[in-house]
Amino acid sequence: LVFGLLTPVDEQRVAEALLGAHYDLVTLVHVETNTGVVNPVESIGRLILPSDTLFFVDGACSIGAMPFPTDAWGVDISTTGSHKCLCSIPGLAVISVSKKAWARLPSPGFMGSYFDLETWWRSTNERKDLPPFTQPTTLVFALHEALRQIEQIGVEAWWSVHREVADRFIREMRAAGFHMLLDNGPAADDRESYSDTVVALEYPPNVSDQACRDLLMNEFGIFVIGNIGEFSNRSFRVGLMSPPQLEAVNLDSALAAFSVALKSPVVRLPR
Amino acid sequence: LVFGLLTPVDEQRVAEALLGAHYDLVTLVHVETNTGVVNPVESIGRLILPSDTLFFVDGACSIGAMPFPTDAWGVDISTTGSHKCLCSIPGLAVISVSKKAWARLPSPGFMGSYFDLETWWRSTNERKDLPPFTQPTTLVFALHEALRQIEQIGVEAWWSVHREVADRFIREMRAAGFHMLLDNGPAADDRESYSDTVVALEYPPNVSDQACRDLLMNEFGIFVIGNIGEFSNRSFRVGLMSPPQLEAVNLDSALAAFSVALKSPVVRLPR
Repeated sequence: LVFGLLTPVDEQRVAEALLGAHYDLVTLVHVETNTGVVNPVESIGRLILPSDTLFFVDGACSIGAMPFPTDAWGVDISTTGSHKCLCSIPGLAVISVSKKAWARLPSPGFMGSYFDLETWWRSTNERKDLPPFTQPTTLVFALHEALRQIEQIGVEAWWSVHREVADRFIREMRAAGFHMLLDNGPAADDRESYSDTVVALEYPPNVSDQACRDLLMNEFGIFVIGNIGEFSNRSFRVGLMSPPQLEAVNLDSALAAFSVALKSPVVRLPR
Repeated sequence: LVFGLLTPVDEQRVAEALLGAHYDLVTLVHVETNTGVVNPVESIGRLILPSDTLFFVDGACSIGAMPFPTDAWGVDISTTGSHKCLCSIPGLAVISVSKKAWARLPSPGFMGSYFDLETWWRSTNERKDLPPFTQPTTLVFALHEALRQIEQIGVEAWWSVHREVADRFIREMRAAGFHMLLDNGPAADDRESYSDTVVALEYPPNVSDQACRDLLMNEFGIFVIGNIGEFSNRSFRVGLMSPPQLEAVNLDSALAAFSVALKSPVVRLPR
């Protein structure tokens, strides 16, 4: 199923497709990385739950920062990375597997011990086996500490921090003259379709992406990665995922820098 | 081919087997982890080099600490881990691949991008692609720094440190009343069959492994892991791989503790 990039997945079309044929697996991304659009995981999960279809959700841009109740939403497999909204350093994949999906794991050895979830479960949760190889202990300790800190704040309070920061960021960027990419699509102004973690901004038509990013780097030491696909050159993204990205002092500096950059004659495209 | 555990692989028998049939791959471990025996990689590599058979060597207990010239020895694929003799922290696999083996890589996608060496080469060496996923940057930096430190010492000088430390360790442990496991086999006293990195010691017959290891832990804070397979309960191993393991002050303490432990009445087995 192909959907427009600036709109959440249309659950009505998914429902029709599910009625028309049998599917082993439905995959969905919760928050799109290039637009920040939020897909309706909960309502699509509800369509899939009664069937034997499995529901796989990429939650890299949401898990930890936005509500993601796997069981309540009927998510069979979800994935993220230690360095995304779990606030640790990169190197670990984090997955959840429902009982429904667990019962359908491929036979052991299908992908080697590296991807054999039953082996991982026995060694790391049940402690019945030794892990099949030496663990990346520094990454495990770092993730453990990051999760402990989120728990200390309280995961719901932590979601609220993201929501408040995203609200403020969007409001102030609009005041500075930017639009969000999503403002051009059918989800415009539907707050629940704008993620709290990835904000995709659009330059005014007379601004050069490269010049703007160069200026931010050279004048303010702010590295901004370009957007991808059809949004390259006209859009850039700001992540609001980790404690440093959410700190008021960094947000203030970033907002001020973006605002100054947009007014600089250096970033104007020649007419 | 099955060989005794206390003897290096017999190259004569390997030569006969290679004459008798065609093999796609010959695998060998350089230094055995449970006995510390050194296998003759160089001479077996010489047998394989002229054929189209590939030669895979597990060098986890040697690469970095003992000479391992892959091309000169005809090693097509070798593997180790960042945390072994490369002196970094765990989490990265390190492999070498010869041109002969590279020409026979499985087609892309065979094991997913995670194990697709061509993708890795393009992204990390040629820098033509982005890596297929976020890299574990802390582990990469740590390994880089560990290799820089080895380079600063000089890799040959670093091998010599291992040789000298192993010589001293074996000599002093013998003086304290221990034997090496290898002393019981046909390689006894052939220094080149004893690794510089793993020393497998045998208790005198009246000493309890568990009591000895408990005493070392409780009295001296030294954690000794038991040996494996048929050597469990009668042998333990000492690794001489990383800078802390090679430091004189730690060696002195360990040697003193082992010597004291062996003389303690607590470790005697009941008659």
